[in-house]
Amino acid sequence: MTSTYQIFRGAEGAVKKSSAPLPPLGPKDILVKITHSGLCASDLAYVPYGIALGHEGVGVVEAIGSAVTQFKVGDRAGGGYHRDSCGHCTYCLSGQDIWCYERSIYGEKECNNGTFGEYYIGVETYLHKIPDGLASAYAAPLQCAGATTYNALVSVIKPGERVGILGIGGLGHLAIQFARKLGTEVVVFSTTKSKEEEARKLGASEFYLLDELEKLQEPVTTLVVAGSRYPDWSKFLVKNVLARAGNIVPLVAPHSPDGELTLPAFTVFFDGYNVRSSLVASRAKHDEMLAFAAAQGVKPLIEEFELSEKGIEEAIGKLRENKIRYRGVLVAKSA
Amino acid sequence: MTSTYQIFRGAEGAVKKSSAPLPPLGPKDILVKITHSGLCASDLAYVPYGIALGHEGVGVVEAIGSAVTQFKVGDRAGGGYHRDSCGHCTYCLSGQDIWCYERSIYGEKECNNGTFGEYYIGVETYLHKIPDGLASAYAAPLQCAGATTYNALVSVIKPGERVGILGIGGLGHLAIQFARKLGTEVVVFSTTKSKEEEARKLGASEFYLLDELEKLQEPVTTLVVAGSRYPDWSKFLVKNVLARAGNIVPLVAPHSPDGELTLPAFTVFFDGYNVRSSLVASRAKHDEMLAFAAAQGVKPLIEEFELSEKGIEEAIGKLRENKIRYRGVLVAKSA
Repeated sequence: MTSTYQIFRGAEGAVKKSSAPLPPLGPKDILVKITHSGLCASDLAYVPYGIALGHEGVGVVEAIGSAVTQFKVGDRAGGGYHRDSCGHCTYCLSGQDIWCYERSIYGEKECNNGTFGEYYIGVETYLHKIPDGLASAYAAPLQCAGATTYNALVSVIKPGERVGILGIGGLGHLAIQFARKLGTEVVVFSTTKSKEEEARKLGASEFYLLDELEKLQEPVTTLVVAGSRYPDWSKFLVKNVLARAGNIVPLVAPHSPDGELTLPAFTVFFDGYNVRSSLVASRAKHDEMLAFAAAQGVKPLIEEFELSEKGIEEAIGKLRENKIRYRGVLVAKSA
Repeated sequence: MTSTYQIFRGAEGAVKKSSAPLPPLGPKDILVKITHSGLCASDLAYVPYGIALGHEGVGVVEAIGSAVTQFKVGDRAGGGYHRDSCGHCTYCLSGQDIWCYERSIYGEKECNNGTFGEYYIGVETYLHKIPDGLASAYAAPLQCAGATTYNALVSVIKPGERVGILGIGGLGHLAIQFARKLGTEVVVFSTTKSKEEEARKLGASEFYLLDELEKLQEPVTTLVVAGSRYPDWSKFLVKNVLARAGNIVPLVAPHSPDGELTLPAFTVFFDGYNVRSSLVASRAKHDEMLAFAAAQGVKPLIEEFELSEKGIEEAIGKLRENKIRYRGVLVAKSA
């Protein structure tokens, strides 16, 4: 085993190759040799902080700590966002571990451990087995974008509902697939006419540009906000778009700590709109999502880039220009 | 039967006695001779519109339409907020009739039919029987404040939760009682130290002034906003006050159509706060609330005023000065 390993971290506004000492494995730690890592828009927010980037990793177990029982060397493992929690609070004991106050999530505590790198070190129950038949390149974006969309949907929707998905990007294109396979009728709202055909292939029954919402004949009952910003709520919180007592599910990670979510109070009150929050997924839902995706054939549409300074630069450039359809995946040379 | 009857409506900023023609009863209509009517802060918002005021009425059935089967002359009946809905939409068919798009609620359509008056005319299934043992003076405020607080609570809470009630007024003092009797631990937040003793008698286990929230040792998991305006969210959406993944339940009717509900987006996202809306109650929940209140001894604390121009003026004056503890009830001279 090498004593240092390559990682990629933000430096002077770009992502640079760097190295970090490989720490000794704790009893429950697992050393994963990364083969694939998704690139998420939220990675961009962490570039200025200089941390090891990446939180949608998949790879092969290279070594395990002394107390690991659920993985063996050679297994495929995925993870990178949710890294730890206390194990004994109400959240942890009730399958809501993502809300644990002692949680560790990407970007919060660890600065040398990212999935853009040679290795990612995960704690046993915070890594997830990749089901057979789910290729690692597809499994990588599921570790955050997949978990985020699946968890939000299953927390809120009921089969038979009409679910609106606003925005077709890394999250939205997975939300469409999951929502359809979960038994809902999927209505897509987008700014981009050229995405209509693909949206329909992914499972959308209806497709509307944002300036033609008045064409909608029947409202949706849940609105998943999967784009990069909040919409003009006055266009969506109306009778023909989101029905009374409907759920708004914002999946947009706010760009700054002082951002605001400003809703029209009158219609929220008299039309009974709810805001249902969701953050990636607790571990049980994460595993459930992987099993569901494998069984139902939910697969991200990906563009592959080399897991190298050059590949990352290229991928980030395309992501910033909003040109990736729909998730960039960095592939290790050795993969 | 008289051919006109007395009502009270807004005129030149005050509430004036007026009369209206008594319409013939439709087949499902019920003529209720009002004995008691609660005064709700939201009545004040309708004074400028000149409509017949009042939506928390209780009285005695004086006449019934030809097709009425569930009430007979002499029965006690209550209602006044929710007045009609279509009966065939998904909302109506699933016990969510308060959200029906064809609904008629107080202040929307009828201008001569209010519970501040000699008579209130209700449609059969939009009037509610008053359980034996529940005095009409107490039943009146339950028709809106009771339905509002009970429905919001049972839609969101689970027994054993810690529920925060912000504001002890017409809504809050009922929310405390319902929450406690529904098996939750009730934590009250108030601006008024002198209300502490009463809050504890009503069922609160803990009481905090808004400037001493840091004293809270354990957070609540649902926050019912029962005061007259939204709080400073930055004080409430924090670890020791409202726990992660907690529910915010705003019961504040916005004062103006262009009001905004502005939440801190970052904490809503990373701490998973939800906004759960509620509007008075659909009919099944309204009946359930009345039965629960009668069985569990939930009773509003009331101040009685005469149902007359003078009595209404006096009650509104006290309400505007925030001096009614906790619900004004107008009592007909004949009651």
